[in-house]
Amino acid sequence: MTTLDEIVAHLGGQVVGDGKTRISGVNTLEAAGAGELSFLANPKYRAQLSTTHAGAVILAPEVVGDCPTAAIVTAQPYLYFARVAQWLQPVARPAAGIHPSAIVEGTSARSASVGPNAYVGPGTEIGEDVVIGANCHIGPNCRIGAGSWLHAGVNVYAGCRIGARAIIHSGAVIGADGFGFARDEDGSWVKIPQTGGVLIGDDVEIGANTTIDRGALEDTVVEDGVKIDNQIQIGHNVHIGMHTAIAGCVGIAGSTRIGRRCTLGGAAMIIGHLEIADDVNIAAGTMIAKSVNKAGSYTGWVPFLDHGEWLKNFSRLRHLDAMADRIRALEGRLAELEKKS
Amino acid sequence: MTTLDEIVAHLGGQVVGDGKTRISGVNTLEAAGAGELSFLANPKYRAQLSTTHAGAVILAPEVVGDCPTAAIVTAQPYLYFARVAQWLQPVARPAAGIHPSAIVEGTSARSASVGPNAYVGPGTEIGEDVVIGANCHIGPNCRIGAGSWLHAGVNVYAGCRIGARAIIHSGAVIGADGFGFARDEDGSWVKIPQTGGVLIGDDVEIGANTTIDRGALEDTVVEDGVKIDNQIQIGHNVHIGMHTAIAGCVGIAGSTRIGRRCTLGGAAMIIGHLEIADDVNIAAGTMIAKSVNKAGSYTGWVPFLDHGEWLKNFSRLRHLDAMADRIRALEGRLAELEKKS
Amino acid sequence: MTTLDEIVAHLGGQVVGDGKTRISGVNTLEAAGAGELSFLANPKYRAQLSTTHAGAVILAPEVVGDCPTAAIVTAQPYLYFARVAQWLQPVARPAAGIHPSAIVEGTSARSASVGPNAYVGPGTEIGEDVVIGANCHIGPNCRIGAGSWLHAGVNVYAGCRIGARAIIHSGAVIGADGFGFARDEDGSWVKIPQTGGVLIGDDVEIGANTTIDRGALEDTVVEDGVKIDNQIQIGHNVHIGMHTAIAGCVGIAGSTRIGRRCTLGGAAMIIGHLEIADDVNIAAGTMIAKSVNKAGSYTGWVPFLDHGEWLKNFSRLRHLDAMADRIRALEGRLAELEKKS
Repeated sequence: MTTLDEIVAHLGGQVVGDGKTRISGVNTLEAAGAGELSFLANPKYRAQLSTTHAGAVILAPEVVGDCPTAAIVTAQPYLYFARVAQWLQPVARPAAGIHPSAIVEGTSARSASVGPNAYVGPGTEIGEDVVIGANCHIGPNCRIGAGSWLHAGVNVYAGCRIGARAIIHSGAVIGADGFGFARDEDGSWVKIPQTGGVLIGDDVEIGANTTIDRGALEDTVVEDGVKIDNQIQIGHNVHIGMHTAIAGCVGIAGSTRIGRRCTLGGAAMIIGHLEIADDVNIAAGTMIAKSVNKAGSYTGWVPFLDHGEWLKNFSRLRHLDAMADRIRALEGRLAELEKKS
Repeated sequence: MTTLDEIVAHLGGQVVGDGKTRISGVNTLEAAGAGELSFLANPKYRAQLSTTHAGAVILAPEVVGDCPTAAIVTAQPYLYFARVAQWLQPVARPAAGIHPSAIVEGTSARSASVGPNAYVGPGTEIGEDVVIGANCHIGPNCRIGAGSWLHAGVNVYAGCRIGARAIIHSGAVIGADGFGFARDEDGSWVKIPQTGGVLIGDDVEIGANTTIDRGALEDTVVEDGVKIDNQIQIGHNVHIGMHTAIAGCVGIAGSTRIGRRCTLGGAAMIIGHLEIADDVNIAAGTMIAKSVNKAGSYTGWVPFLDHGEWLKNFSRLRHLDAMADRIRALEGRLAELEKKS
Repeated sequence: MTTLDEIVAHLGGQVVGDGKTRISGVNTLEAAGAGELSFLANPKYRAQLSTTHAGAVILAPEVVGDCPTAAIVTAQPYLYFARVAQWLQPVARPAAGIHPSAIVEGTSARSASVGPNAYVGPGTEIGEDVVIGANCHIGPNCRIGAGSWLHAGVNVYAGCRIGARAIIHSGAVIGADGFGFARDEDGSWVKIPQTGGVLIGDDVEIGANTTIDRGALEDTVVEDGVKIDNQIQIGHNVHIGMHTAIAGCVGIAGSTRIGRRCTLGGAAMIIGHLEIADDVNIAAGTMIAKSVNKAGSYTGWVPFLDHGEWLKNFSRLRHLDAMADRIRALEGRLAELEKKS
């Protein structure tokens, strides 16, 4: 339990209305009750403001006049909400200690928690306040930085280094072999040993069942503050710049270098050996097949249609070149006629 | 061992030919032998009917004349086959009991089976006849309904509720954090605590390595009878209606609401905050970027071509707008000429 | 430590320069130091040749004149590099033996290694020199061929057979149920029991979090020498021919048959019940929706554009058919005019 006055004392912003309003948690505009703090960030939900039962709402100065309740006014309501939610609802961490069923062959800080049936290989260092969830497997000679939390069932291969305050979700695999083969004359493939590692910075979040391969010779690198959603594949020797955010189902092929503060929409695919500049936003479902040298927004998906409409229109794609030729021919013939007339 | 007569007594349909024909199992038209029951559902395989060695075939009334063997006639041969296969080849379930290496801190029904090295958190209730496979991790305060089967290596985060008779395959992750961050001024991301849960109805099947994120504030919901294939990503606060079926590699971004009895083809991608009506069929590989308000079939993939043909035709996509302008210009000039002539 | 002379004695090729040059490992042109062997295979990196500090470089005869160091000359530098890297940096395998926390109900060769908390079901045979990583789950009645290595956290369902020298990465799931359901009249789905298995040949590599479903009635088959990257979904009854290589995020739907020596680029999607010929190369991001009967390269993705350009051009896709009609109309009207003039 806290009050609006206490919240702004802690996080800034300005109270409009009764600063003594008591707050026990956060919720959506639609679901919030009297003791709850809500927020309006997406204009889509503006209509819900007038009917909310929230105790107070975090919002931007422009809409404070429409607010039927007390408010916290801030230029960035969503960011403010993130901070207040973290403060009001801190995540409970498992108690320190090594579960009797865990096998720790490396070293683990006294304040760390190692869960049931987890395995930590020889030479691996588990930092202060780290949580290693149940059934995690951390290979030999890894380093897991202070405050990181690996949820149940994360696999980290030998020699990977993960910075401080990482959050890695279940089923993520860090450091499996990159996909590197040379083709022999009979069509068979000869494996290139993958002897690089994975180097992950501080404050990185990695989603469930995401895979980040180890480098072939040098490391795959994920810089500080990168946020990676679920079901993402990051190939060997990829380098991802600071504060880039990557939505679910994205694939990034080997040796591609992504800049800082980029955003990659869901299911975007980036082929190998490319360079993507800083501050590039790639739309969901877009295939990036050449380097992007300039900040900006890039898109490349096709609109869906009713199936019949789609058949009629998209079958034309096989004949676009012929259509262009016909237009050029028409232009020539018309110019001839125009000359004559 | 059973007979055609016994099968129709149990499941309906009509025997044509010798009802005493003995049946020990099911198989394809091509592979079935004398004691096996096959089926013809896909017209593609009709040519195999005349040469089958099956003991009997399940088929529709229209094709019974072409059948060289005994037959079970039914309006829906594939559905009939599903039922007879379930009846003839019931899946063997592991014996009840908790494996000595499992750690159960919650409660587990006596008839449930908890496999080697599985972990069940405090406050979690495992229902009657449930199977929890080896190395599963079920966090605290979950509920797994009667008859559900979690195969080896499933991860369920705290507070998720799964209904009765679910089948969840290895590597699935239920309840990891949704991908929610607010951007700070320096480009860094501030995490929105994900405090909702996941609510899964009865008779749901979830494929291997599929991920279903927990809600941000409210729950992610999967209604009764939904079937979800492998490698699927379902974002936070998605709501999937009853009996919808989702093929492999699909992604559904946060807060999207999918109706009842929809089908989503493989690798379809649906962006966030959309509404998809009931009875919508989305083709494989289609990107859905706006709401679909009407039942029907929707498609949006591009045809592949021989690489040279593709280059020639698809490079025109960058100039479609110019092509349209040139057509409009031609129409104007031609109208001028026509006026004159 | 070895020398160039010893390397060519072992692997062929021809030394140019000092055959006594001592080599301790391999590295990239950019990073290699005096005792390291590098290679030039991709012409993109040719500029790095003149400035390399490598002790020697593997390269093709055409570029030997530009090489500032000793060299090993071979027609296939990348293949040679693969072999020399394997020879100089053999991967260390875990020691033979069953970890005390592992549960082996089947049989395991004396030379095999079974890791912490792994489970091997009854009737399963683990061959010579096999490595079963920590937390792996191998169901009953499987066979894992000699020399195979399953990394930590692999799940293999009952009755699957894996050949010799397989490498299977963490989180892969082999043999989960295929996605097979028949629709009932009320829209609900009735499960088709998936009673086939998975048959994997020799020398197959399977990436992290890849899923290969068991067959419905007959087996899903992966022939010898197939290489499969991460996050791939292979449906029930798919058949993949020898030496085919499949890059990350690919999906192959049920009953499709892929030929030998094919390559599938990242995120390619192949729908079900198709036939793909031998020696077919499918570009990244391509959707294959009909059979491919002829060897060759096939492509079907759309180019990305700056978002504004994309909006302008791709919105025309909904009107391609109308554009084609307008071109045809123009051609008719123009022919009329031409006749008159």
